[in-house]
Amino acid sequence: MPGENNSYEIAIIGCGPAGLSAAVNARIRRKTFVIFGGEFCTPKLHSSPQVDNYLGFPKVKGEDLRKHFLRHVKEMEININSVRVSAVYPQAEGFELVAGEHNYNAKSVIIATGVTAAKLFPGEKEYLGRGVGYCATCDGPLYSGRTVAIIGYIKDALKEAKYLSELCHKVYFLPLFEEQVGSLQQNVEIIKDQPVRINGQQTVTELQTEGRRIAVNGVFIYRQTILPDQLVPGLEIEGSAIKVNRSLETSIKGIYAAGDCTGSPYQLAKAVGEGAVAALHAADFLG
Amino acid sequence: MPGENNSYEIAIIGCGPAGLSAAVNARIRRKTFVIFGGEFCTPKLHSSPQVDNYLGFPKVKGEDLRKHFLRHVKEMEININSVRVSAVYPQAEGFELVAGEHNYNAKSVIIATGVTAAKLFPGEKEYLGRGVGYCATCDGPLYSGRTVAIIGYIKDALKEAKYLSELCHKVYFLPLFEEQVGSLQQNVEIIKDQPVRINGQQTVTELQTEGRRIAVNGVFIYRQTILPDQLVPGLEIEGSAIKVNRSLETSIKGIYAAGDCTGSPYQLAKAVGEGAVAALHAADFLG
Repeated sequence: MPGENNSYEIAIIGCGPAGLSAAVNARIRRKTFVIFGGEFCTPKLHSSPQVDNYLGFPKVKGEDLRKHFLRHVKEMEININSVRVSAVYPQAEGFELVAGEHNYNAKSVIIATGVTAAKLFPGEKEYLGRGVGYCATCDGPLYSGRTVAIIGYIKDALKEAKYLSELCHKVYFLPLFEEQVGSLQQNVEIIKDQPVRINGQQTVTELQTEGRRIAVNGVFIYRQTILPDQLVPGLEIEGSAIKVNRSLETSIKGIYAAGDCTGSPYQLAKAVGEGAVAALHAADFLG
Repeated sequence: MPGENNSYEIAIIGCGPAGLSAAVNARIRRKTFVIFGGEFCTPKLHSSPQVDNYLGFPKVKGEDLRKHFLRHVKEMEININSVRVSAVYPQAEGFELVAGEHNYNAKSVIIATGVTAAKLFPGEKEYLGRGVGYCATCDGPLYSGRTVAIIGYIKDALKEAKYLSELCHKVYFLPLFEEQVGSLQQNVEIIKDQPVRINGQQTVTELQTEGRRIAVNGVFIYRQTILPDQLVPGLEIEGSAIKVNRSLETSIKGIYAAGDCTGSPYQLAKAVGEGAVAALHAADFLG
């Protein structure tokens, strides 16, 4: 399973049923791989009172099934990397993944990020790549000496604020998570207000909140889940799902998707099956 | 689950992982359904020494997993109908299934018959519908007063021989199964020889065996598994698999397919996932 220098044959993004099933199958096919997940896999299953239709486990509590799944990957000595992947970029060969403070390389990628029903802000899609970003590590340098706002639904945004404060003239920080913000650099101003829309002309010029209008050159947004086409620029989406064929191939060669992110029915058995199929096709793709 | 007068909302053909998963999901969606399977579900899983990649069951014996699956359907009070389905015909509304000595009606059908790698005889495909048949109950009357041969790889063929002997002038019976043939009608001649090819002109004229040439008007063939396009005339096949889309819809509206019969990878998790997805789409189709 270990790859050298953060380089792997397969990178799996997500530790729900689809991601775990992909990992189990990648392991059996003896591929080097890394699996990225949240700190807790998987909240959706954990909070499900009873699962009746995953063949082999009649009337099982979601939490019990979750434990069975995690025990399975543990027995196979699969370690889940609790780092959030913020971007996937195609390289000459394979892909580069930006995850936390490190970069990873993989020859193929399996996206298993679940349902991502984030509601976008007005202007967010319009100015994507023209002032709106989701990854300070990736796009931060473009804003050197300039003014940015950070909308943070998750605590991870704090690290990004710190990083951006070193590069930027001024950082506005909108904490929308429960945890304490703590102390920040001098040039970071905390705004306790709800964001409303992103305005601009050719590029972003302003973040509008309920109470004020803030002149900025860029807006970084950190949500619990990243929409797949934000994670992988150029990925083809159909409705709100990643477009895949019967082999779970996406519109980008070498990138596969499995589970709820490929669309309904949002079922455990579908996710587990697709995770397996995606991993086996990725393994065949690698040769 | 019970339907009236052999009429159901869903008919599931096959009791492997895909068929069982479809049944579990049809039950949860409160549809009336019937599931047809062999006398033993499922030999493939039974004979698998160890399964490593069905999430939740690390290093499980195939036979143990088979018992978990059967316990699951039993707990849901799902009874498997051990009758072989020999043909599916579209009706004005829904489908008619010929199974053993009875006919069944279903508004939708899920084919979960597994891998069917039967090698055809030379001439078999060429004369299909022009002398070659797989269902005496369906096509028998066409051979009233004429001469037919029956190639029987399974014991079920005996019943068909009996039925055809009542209609036909003469029946040649080639038993290729292990069980005893027992006594048959006067006009049935048992041929202990291997079939080689089916010859004809406009229609079948002859069954050629290793040792002789037998003049016949028709040849009925009974194998363990029926090829899907023999089971459902007109079903679109791709390679050796049933062509399906992401919703597991086949080329015929109202007929779904799941598991190994939809193509590789021939994996348990894929079969279970597809069985669930097919049942849920069939339920949506019924409204």
